Amino acid sequence: MMELDDQLAVFRRGADEILLEEDLRERLKEGRPLRIKAGFDPTAPDLHLGHTVLINKLRQLQDLGHHIIFLIGDFTGRIGDPSGKNATRPPLSSEDIERNAATYRDQVFRILDPDRTEVAFNSTWMEPLGAAGMVQLASRHTVARMLERDDFHKRYRDHQPIAIHEFLYPLIQGYDSVALKADVELGGTDQKFNLLVGRELQKQEGMPPQVILTMPILEGLDGVQKMSKSLGNYIAVQDAPDDMFGKLMSISDELMWRYYELLSLRPMGEVRAARRAAEAGERNPRDIKFELGRELVDRFHGPGRGEQAQAAFVERFQKHALPEELPEVTVAVPAEGLLLPNALKSAGLVASTSEGRSMIRQGAVRLNGERIEDPGTLIEPGEPVVIQVGKRRVARVSRPVKKNSPAP
Amino acid sequence: MMELDDQLAVFRRGADEILLEEDLRERLKEGRPLRIKAGFDPTAPDLHLGHTVLINKLRQLQDLGHHIIFLIGDFTGRIGDPSGKNATRPPLSSEDIERNAATYRDQVFRILDPDRTEVAFNSTWMEPLGAAGMVQLASRHTVARMLERDDFHKRYRDHQPIAIHEFLYPLIQGYDSVALKADVELGGTDQKFNLLVGRELQKQEGMPPQVILTMPILEGLDGVQKMSKSLGNYIAVQDAPDDMFGKLMSISDELMWRYYELLSLRPMGEVRAARRAAEAGERNPRDIKFELGRELVDRFHGPGRGEQAQAAFVERFQKHALPEELPEVTVAVPAEGLLLPNALKSAGLVASTSEGRSMIRQGAVRLNGERIEDPGTLIEPGEPVVIQVGKRRVARVSRPVKKNSPAP
Repeated sequence: MMELDDQLAVFRRGADEILLEEDLRERLKEGRPLRIKAGFDPTAPDLHLGHTVLINKLRQLQDLGHHIIFLIGDFTGRIGDPSGKNATRPPLSSEDIERNAATYRDQVFRILDPDRTEVAFNSTWMEPLGAAGMVQLASRHTVARMLERDDFHKRYRDHQPIAIHEFLYPLIQGYDSVALKADVELGGTDQKFNLLVGRELQKQEGMPPQVILTMPILEGLDGVQKMSKSLGNYIAVQDAPDDMFGKLMSISDELMWRYYELLSLRPMGEVRAARRAAEAGERNPRDIKFELGRELVDRFHGPGRGEQAQAAFVERFQKHALPEELPEVTVAVPAEGLLLPNALKSAGLVASTSEGRSMIRQGAVRLNGERIEDPGTLIEPGEPVVIQVGKRRVARVSRPVKKNSPAP
Repeated sequence: MMELDDQLAVFRRGADEILLEEDLRERLKEGRPLRIKAGFDPTAPDLHLGHTVLINKLRQLQDLGHHIIFLIGDFTGRIGDPSGKNATRPPLSSEDIERNAATYRDQVFRILDPDRTEVAFNSTWMEPLGAAGMVQLASRHTVARMLERDDFHKRYRDHQPIAIHEFLYPLIQGYDSVALKADVELGGTDQKFNLLVGRELQKQEGMPPQVILTMPILEGLDGVQKMSKSLGNYIAVQDAPDDMFGKLMSISDELMWRYYELLSLRPMGEVRAARRAAEAGERNPRDIKFELGRELVDRFHGPGRGEQAQAAFVERFQKHALPEELPEVTVAVPAEGLLLPNALKSAGLVASTSEGRSMIRQGAVRLNGERIEDPGTLIEPGEPVVIQVGKRRVARVSRPVKKNSPAP
C-alpha cells in the first residue's frame, strides 16, 4: 500500500470533512484494507454526475486497495414513506428493487471495479431484527438529540409535521454500519448527522467507531446551484457521448477545476500542474477541458468514445458547422429591440419565454455560433441571424422592423 | 341486557371520564356484547386494592354481559426498558412472563369470572409485524403530537432524556386496540393519551374508534395520597383476611364511601341509601364499614371469610381484648403534658416522632382502645394507659410526673 500521508491525501481530496482524522490515521497504520461503506437509496437510480462524486471517491479509495461496500437500502426502500407525504419515496416491490439495483450496478460499475466491490442489501440484517429488535434499536437514541438534526430542528420549530418513523431511519443507517463493521462511511454533507449516529451505535456495541467522510454537493453546469434534474443543469451518466462532451465544454474554467477535483481520477499533482500552466498562459484551458471531457466520456461510454466526441464537437461547434438546411423564420422585431427569450419563443425554438431564459442560463443558446449567457440580450432589427438552442434546435431568423411599432 | 340508561350509569360509576359518551351510547344501542379491553404490564403482579379499581370496573361491565379482554403486554414486557434507565422495567424472559401471568390470573380471577374473560397476549400480533411493520406503525403519529403528552412535554422541557422507543409504546398499545377490535378501552387517568392513540389508529384503519373510559387513582388508607406500596398505605390483594379487614376498619367514613363506589359490587342505589341512613343517624357507619370489609374479604379469600374476620376484629379491638402480657413501660411526662408522637417514641413503639405522627395520621394508633387521629394529642401525667400502634405493637405506659420539669 501507499505511504500513510499519500493515502491520507487521497482521502482528503475534495472531501468536506473527515471525522476523526486521527482515527483514520490509526486505522490506516494497521495496514489492512479498510471496510468502506456508502449507502444508496434504491429509488429511481438515474444518476447524474453530482451523484458520482461519492462513487468517484469510492473508486479512488478502491484504487488504494480498500474494501468497498456499496450498500443498497432496500429495507427502507420497501417501506418507502408510509406517511405518504413524500411522493419521491413510494414503497418499492421486490421486483422494483431488483430492477433498480441492476440499473444501479450498470451505472456504478462504470466507475467502480465490480470484482473488488461488495454489493450489500440492508434487509439482510434488518428483517431478522424483528419488531422487538426495532424497538430496542429505537431505545439507543433520544428524541432531543434527534431534534438537533438541522432539518428536524427546523421542521419542529416551524410546526411542520415529523412522523416518528423518520427518527428510525438514521438509526437504521447507523445499524447498517454495525452490521457491516464499517471502518469508514462516506456520505454527502447533508448526511453528517446520520453518519455520526453510526459512530455512536458502534461505540455502544463496543466496536471502534467508524471514521466519517463527507463529500460536498457538486455544482451544476451553471457553477452556482447544485446539480439537479429539476434545475436542468445536469449531465446524466447515461447522456450520449456527444451530449456529455458538449455539456462539459460549456462549463466555466473555474468550474472545470472543481470537476477535476471531484470527478476525475487523475492524480491531484497533475491537476495542480495543469492549472499552474493554464494560469501562466502556457496551456490553453480549452485543451485541459477537452482532457476532462475525454476522461469522463471514456469512463461512461468506453475507451476511445471521448476522442470521437471531441472530434464531433470540434467539427460542429468550433467550425460553426451547422445543418445544411436551416428553417427560415421571420420574427418581427420592434425598433427598440426584442429580448432574446422572446425571440426564441417567436421563432418556435422554445415553448415559452421562461424556457428561453432557462436555456440561456444553462448556456444552451448560441447566436451566430457564440454562446449567449445573458437572458437580457436584445435582438435588434437587421440582417438574419442563426439562433441555436442546444444542438438540434436551430433556425435562421430574419428580423424585419415591426410595423406597428415604428422607430421613434 | 339492562336498559340503556341503567347500563350507562354502571359505566359512569366512579369513572373519571368517558370519551365519547355519544359513541358509547350508539354502541350500546347495537345490543351486542361490547369488546372491552384493559392492558396490564406483566411485571411484578403483586396487586393492591388500588390496582383492582380497574378490574372491578371490568367486573361490573362483565356483569352487564360484555366481553372482557384482559390483555397482558408481554411483547413490551420482553423488551423491558432497553435504555436500562428504568429499573422497574427489567426485560422479562418467557418463563418470567408465564409465571407472572399465572400470578395475575390467580389474583384477577378473584374479581373477574374466568369463564367469561379472554386473556390475550400482545406478542401474538406484535411479533409477526416485523421490523418493517414497526417502522410503518411509527409513521402513524408525529413527534410533535407525541411531545404533547404531559410527561413527555415536561421531560423535554426540563432537558430530561426521552429515548425514542418510548414514543413507540403508546403506538403499540394503540395497535393492540386495532388487533383486538376493541369497542372500549379502560385505563387509569394517566393513560388517557395512550388510550386516545388507540382511537386514532382505529380510525386510520377505517374502524369505528374505541370509547375510552378512565378510572381515578384510589386513595390509600390515609385518604389523601394515592394507594402505593412505597407509601405503606395499601391493602394487598394477598393480605391475610384479618389484616385486610382490620385495615379497612381503619379508614375514615368519608373514604369508606369512596371505596364503596370504586371497589364494591353493590349497586350504587344501595350505597346511596346506606349513606343517607348514616347521615340521618339511622345507621351506625361502623356497621356499614363492616359490610364493606366482609364483601372485600369474601371476594379475595372466599365466602364466609369476611364474617370470620369481622368476628376476630370485634373480639380483638372492640372488646379491647389485648395480649395477656403487656410490656410495662414508664414514660416521664412533664406536668404540661407530652405530645403523643413523643410518648410513642419514648415508649419504644415507634422509631421516631415522625413515624409516630405518620402512624397516627394513618389511623393506626389507639389510646385505651380509641383511635386517635390528631398527632397534637397530649398525654398528661397520671394513671397508666394502654397505647397500641397497629395490632402488634402494644404497651402499658405509666406516666409519672417528670421530675426536672415541675408544674408551674
